[in-house]
Amino acid sequence: MELNFLRWLQEQMPNSAKIPLGIGDDAALLAQQTGQQTVVTTDMLMDGTDFVLSECGAFAAGRKAMAVNLSDLAAMGAKPVAAFISLAIPRGSGNDETLNLAQQLMQGLLPLAAEFECAIAGGDTNSWHGRLVICVTAIGEVVDGKAWRRSGAQPGDAILVTGSFGGSILGRHLSFSPRLRESHLLQSHHAQVHAAIDVSDGLSLDLSRICAASSCGAIIEVAKIPLSPAAHELAEKGNSQQTALDHALADGEDFELILAVPPGEAARLLREQPLAVPLTQIGWFTAEQGLQQQLASGELLTLQPRGYEH
Amino acid sequence: MELNFLRWLQEQMPNSAKIPLGIGDDAALLAQQTGQQTVVTTDMLMDGTDFVLSECGAFAAGRKAMAVNLSDLAAMGAKPVAAFISLAIPRGSGNDETLNLAQQLMQGLLPLAAEFECAIAGGDTNSWHGRLVICVTAIGEVVDGKAWRRSGAQPGDAILVTGSFGGSILGRHLSFSPRLRESHLLQSHHAQVHAAIDVSDGLSLDLSRICAASSCGAIIEVAKIPLSPAAHELAEKGNSQQTALDHALADGEDFELILAVPPGEAARLLREQPLAVPLTQIGWFTAEQGLQQQLASGELLTLQPRGYEH
Repeated sequence: MELNFLRWLQEQMPNSAKIPLGIGDDAALLAQQTGQQTVVTTDMLMDGTDFVLSECGAFAAGRKAMAVNLSDLAAMGAKPVAAFISLAIPRGSGNDETLNLAQQLMQGLLPLAAEFECAIAGGDTNSWHGRLVICVTAIGEVVDGKAWRRSGAQPGDAILVTGSFGGSILGRHLSFSPRLRESHLLQSHHAQVHAAIDVSDGLSLDLSRICAASSCGAIIEVAKIPLSPAAHELAEKGNSQQTALDHALADGEDFELILAVPPGEAARLLREQPLAVPLTQIGWFTAEQGLQQQLASGELLTLQPRGYEH
Repeated sequence: MELNFLRWLQEQMPNSAKIPLGIGDDAALLAQQTGQQTVVTTDMLMDGTDFVLSECGAFAAGRKAMAVNLSDLAAMGAKPVAAFISLAIPRGSGNDETLNLAQQLMQGLLPLAAEFECAIAGGDTNSWHGRLVICVTAIGEVVDGKAWRRSGAQPGDAILVTGSFGGSILGRHLSFSPRLRESHLLQSHHAQVHAAIDVSDGLSLDLSRICAASSCGAIIEVAKIPLSPAAHELAEKGNSQQTALDHALADGEDFELILAVPPGEAARLLREQPLAVPLTQIGWFTAEQGLQQQLASGELLTLQPRGYEH
């Protein structure tokens, strides 16, 4: 199976000067450039946990596996170079079915990789008697010293977010667009970004991670959080008594960016809105640790970070 | 679980100048150096396919997952830099059991990584209701243009191999040492190596892969193949009527290196034996495609490549 799959895959891949050697050897070779750093992220997605194969199909599962890794590169302010795709594919009734599943998966993944100029340079294809597992490792580049870490937020920095939050389970968790264009625009315009993270486990939980890494706290003006239509929909039809705001604060897999930006720079970015998606300030970082929510009345309440804990 | 595991893991990791940012952010950062290329390989190992967890334990499974990736770096002539470990861990009776399994796995993996100066710089830890899956991505470096590809073998080149072959299933497939020291010695002494591969799927099958990539053929002097004690043992106790030579030619997971080396250089290496393991010439590459075996009588017979086909 693997040989046929690799031949098919090689035909899909354009040549790239950044990849002197791609699929088909013991390892791939990537060019190194002076003044750059290599950025590496990996995510493993499992049927039944990150997607339900029988409901969403292999195309959507493959797309998501690529997208979550690209989202991590975006959160580092990095440009994609190459990705490596390892698969444990359930054995169907025969080789053809297994190959077919692998191809569908790649057909979901390849257009997204191509859109963001990320070569598929290798991987490992296996079949087994278990459920589908997809492990993607994405490699990117960033100018030396310019990566956005979680640890650089400073008290007084504005908390900016891209897009809107909540209710991704209604479909957006499979179809979201990783914020690489946004990240690239900010990097190429030398926007001052002190820290960044992508929201994979929940807005409040991922914000608390920036705070922990930066040894600071944050105040969220909850009325300013952009709520996605799906957050409202889920609040209305859900049985959990959660409001749209609850969903926005705690649902995972929004894959929007949270950015720590100094106040003057934040004011400029908010005025100019240089991205194709809205940039919104939802609060600011504080010297005092912990998360607080500021109500419309001005009252401050402790906010317990909530989201998906691994 | 993941947070406790990551804290524990961070404590195990020494700092490395090559890894400006390791575990704990959205991605890791690796330094890029002028004149180097990045080498990337990935292997996914599944319980029931690549190891049997209930028989070998998590320690051995973790060690193997690291070792097979390091073997791929050795086959490229590359030096390890960093590895990324993604896990789908079976949910035991509770968090403690899952954490315990993850730690055992890393305790098998970490000493091997440390031995070959490979930092563990990231990964993705998950638990699920399936069997254990371990996906390792290893990243190395090689001087620009000096990587050993599969495609450089030339007619007349000697086929050199490290170590001995066959019967790895009796235990060596879990305990083998990746041939990084050997690879590094050959690279640092500027040995001329036209092509290389590590034997993961079988000596004859992996040799045929060098031939296919290099558009050449090979003649194997079968009497010269170093047979491992395990190949003899398996032949004696096995019920399959296979000889020790059959095992050496077709068993997978020897993780020895096959090297294509020009004749003069091969003579020198065979005389000097610069490695800690024996270097043996088992034949030579030919312009005519296909594998042939030369018997002790001098007779040439077609040799069908055999081994583990994915």
